[in-house]
Amino acid sequence: MTPDEALARFLDARVAHLATADGRAVPHIVPITFAVDATRIVTAVDAKPKRDGHLRRLNNIAANPAVSLLVDEYDEAWSRLWWARADGVVSILDGGPDRIRALELLRARYPQYETVAIDGPVIAVDVTRWSGWIAGGR
Amino acid sequence: MTPDEALARFLDARVAHLATADGRAVPHIVPITFAVDATRIVTAVDAKPKRDGHLRRLNNIAANPAVSLLVDEYDEAWSRLWWARADGVVSILDGGPDRIRALELLRARYPQYETVAIDGPVIAVDVTRWSGWIAGGR
Repeated sequence: MTPDEALARFLDARVAHLATADGRAVPHIVPITFAVDATRIVTAVDAKPKRDGHLRRLNNIAANPAVSLLVDEYDEAWSRLWWARADGVVSILDGGPDRIRALELLRARYPQYETVAIDGPVIAVDVTRWSGWIAGGR
Repeated sequence: MTPDEALARFLDARVAHLATADGRAVPHIVPITFAVDATRIVTAVDAKPKRDGHLRRLNNIAANPAVSLLVDEYDEAWSRLWWARADGVVSILDGGPDRIRALELLRARYPQYETVAIDGPVIAVDVTRWSGWIAGGR
């Protein structure tokens, strides 16, 4: 899968998986909603912290900004399997126009945010590599 | 979600996401098929290596055995969201009865392996923590 195709898969997907790792290289993984802004992927932390998951994600990012994001779809017909990955470096948007833009993109993409507050920080991943795999080659 | 409920979600799921990290704590993430054997999750590396993904996963594990696995389902009704996670430590089964048992479990779970060879190593994750989250609390 070419980098452009991987990006296109992210544009189509509704959920991604975010892997972070702490300073001791212990990985952590959570599903996230997200929006793509050119070479950046943004995702929000809901107002209501989910026990353990959200805090750990933010602690890991503070210790180590390298992250990996994946979108994929499982199919019992393995000839239809694919995945796309975005590797990058995180920054936390806790204010300013970048955060406002990220929230606009997230709200435009997910009508659910009309009733779910986004008070927490926004995580922005500057993607350094788009890659992917599709069954049957390419 | 209790540890037992998290385990039950893994038993039901057809695909999981595996996060590893290399020695420099750079995370990596791939979707995997898997089987659960008591407190162990096993997954195979297909005969045909997928460019980059499979090798990197094995290199990461060799450098750093800490891994995290996630199962989840996205739903546009966010009140139905959930995820379950298994954190643990990996070993590579490259022969012996443990590998044979793992392959039996994988073949029993996925009829697709009748036509997909498993010649590569089997990865076993000894789970040290089952956890999870379900919308609406618990």
